[in-house]
Amino acid sequence: MAQLKLPALDPVQVPPRVGSAYPEPFKSRVSARRKQRLGDALGLKNYGVNLTTIPPGAVSALRHWHSHEDEFIYIVSGELVLVTNDGEQRLTPGMCAGFPAGRADGHCLVNRTQRDAVFLEVGDRRPEDAVTYPDDDIAGRATPQGRRFTRKDGTPY
Amino acid sequence: MAQLKLPALDPVQVPPRVGSAYPEPFKSRVSARRKQRLGDALGLKNYGVNLTTIPPGAVSALRHWHSHEDEFIYIVSGELVLVTNDGEQRLTPGMCAGFPAGRADGHCLVNRTQRDAVFLEVGDRRPEDAVTYPDDDIAGRATPQGRRFTRKDGTPY
Repeated sequence: MAQLKLPALDPVQVPPRVGSAYPEPFKSRVSARRKQRLGDALGLKNYGVNLTTIPPGAVSALRHWHSHEDEFIYIVSGELVLVTNDGEQRLTPGMCAGFPAGRADGHCLVNRTQRDAVFLEVGDRRPEDAVTYPDDDIAGRATPQGRRFTRKDGTPY
Repeated sequence: MAQLKLPALDPVQVPPRVGSAYPEPFKSRVSARRKQRLGDALGLKNYGVNLTTIPPGAVSALRHWHSHEDEFIYIVSGELVLVTNDGEQRLTPGMCAGFPAGRADGHCLVNRTQRDAVFLEVGDRRPEDAVTYPDDDIAGRATPQGRRFTRKDGTPY
């Protein structure tokens, strides 16, 4: 098949970004995740769409919630455990989850299987967004240069 | 497996809406499409996420583009032909496309196969959005009550 041209895109054409912008000691915890920024590659600006791969034993992020961003995830392949305040749920391909802005229920996805898990994630880009991490001493804020992190008392890492 | 609870959701739990809000003679052209509004079911407000099924021979929409909405689609199953100004491209599962706000390139998806095709679609909700249909005498505008349609000269259907 001929290679797709914009506005169509085959994700194999998009190189992944590995790891996170977290400071240590958190960076090491999510060093294995791989994100392909499909929305950016397609020229979208109002929200981001990533195709994210979580290897066996890895997590998608620190458990967190957003003040102003709506977040959506859809499982493409493999199996992931969704962790929230209410506990755990196992998600398989075709299942999804949504995290409305401002709902104080930290979430993350854990891969407890022996094979890669892949999901689509969507999040809109609110300049006033703040990210809360209930389990860790870290806080995130949107800035024009991307997300910036401090300790919860505002001091830098 | 136990039924998922929010913030997780299995799309089988979401009843589809069949057809469109287009006036005739356009309504009949997309009467077969089925949309499951996953984003609404998950309580998301900043953008919509639909899981949309296009039966054999059907189309996703009239060919169109948005003034202010970014649109993203991801093929889940089956095969769809993307039609744009530049012609046609065949999309299979895992492929995607994106339509940045304001880019004057009308698009739609056609199912030319003998089986259902399913895709995810994301669109943000801009109150100032206008929809242009290059091939048809119809115009769309966002309103607080949803999208409203007129002829291109503004007269009602």
